[in-house]
Amino acid sequence: MKFGPVIDELIDALRILPGVGQKTAQRMALELLERKRSGGLRLSKALDTAMHDIQRCVRCRNFTETEICAICDDSRRDDGLLCIVESASDLLAIEQSHQFKGRYFVLGGSLSPIDGRGPDQIGIPQLVERIREAGISEVIIATNPTVEGEATAHYISEVINDGSLLITRLAHGLPLGGELGFVDGETLGYAFSGRKPVNE
Amino acid sequence: MKFGPVIDELIDALRILPGVGQKTAQRMALELLERKRSGGLRLSKALDTAMHDIQRCVRCRNFTETEICAICDDSRRDDGLLCIVESASDLLAIEQSHQFKGRYFVLGGSLSPIDGRGPDQIGIPQLVERIREAGISEVIIATNPTVEGEATAHYISEVINDGSLLITRLAHGLPLGGELGFVDGETLGYAFSGRKPVNE
Repeated sequence: MKFGPVIDELIDALRILPGVGQKTAQRMALELLERKRSGGLRLSKALDTAMHDIQRCVRCRNFTETEICAICDDSRRDDGLLCIVESASDLLAIEQSHQFKGRYFVLGGSLSPIDGRGPDQIGIPQLVERIREAGISEVIIATNPTVEGEATAHYISEVINDGSLLITRLAHGLPLGGELGFVDGETLGYAFSGRKPVNE
Repeated sequence: MKFGPVIDELIDALRILPGVGQKTAQRMALELLERKRSGGLRLSKALDTAMHDIQRCVRCRNFTETEICAICDDSRRDDGLLCIVESASDLLAIEQSHQFKGRYFVLGGSLSPIDGRGPDQIGIPQLVERIREAGISEVIIATNPTVEGEATAHYISEVINDGSLLITRLAHGLPLGGELGFVDGETLGYAFSGRKPVNE
């Protein structure tokens, strides 16, 4: 480094962002200093406000600056459907697909005893309470298709199963736009076992 | 967006960073909120400090938080050599190569009348004054090997040429680690015309 402590600290701090290494952080810092000072100040303020003001929604644990998030507060959504996701970014991906118009519950991670994440850390007591409320007819468990995600889904389905609730998982199979040759064997297995008649 | 104005503003503000689009900005914002709140606050402070405190060195126009930058202030460097670069990131690249131990002058861009960058904007009067000082024996013009960089180099060499000063340009040729088949014709031309006897 040849710029002194203030720029060095900026470069170091930029490396906190995911996917940003030393070279990218240098490029970002110099670009902001050279051409985008007002943008840098805007980003500084936005970060400060968000880090202080953003909390979890008391109903669904989604990020929000109010007590109840915009999705929980939206009266046009279907109260009968509850989709359980691991993170706010999974929620965002589902929202951007426009395929689901129910409510959400954000776990904030998957079960992982090694990392100290048990049922309490991912909000299971709160989830059970939420499901006990009248009106939920189907719970869609949309955890990630990973080992931990599957284990979490299994655990949740055991805990919330009261015999009357419909509990579903998202379908596995070929992703659109993919090529068969690049799809792993397990996924192909799901695609075969879940095959559907075309003339149904 | 489904998170409300505070997170939306954070995502928007992150897009100011070079190479960061909508998806990356979303990922960064959610990652900071989920796991790196203190890192986010640190980045906010670092940005605020840097955007306010960093100025141009009065001698070489490099970025610095003091009046004179660390390179100009370093008595071990060679006062006889002056390297002219377009930007602070070019300076950084040269410093990281450890191939040069003289002084620098940072233009802050290349000549580009279309973008309103004439000699005054890239500090030519200041450069001429600097070169008039006693003690400089060689000026290395290290502008980028682009059309604008070459034009800027040509202009500078005309302006500062007083008949006694040695003015040099960085050599063109094959980059190390490249493959001949991927090198453009112009570069190959420079490599041939600049060829050297191996038994010199």
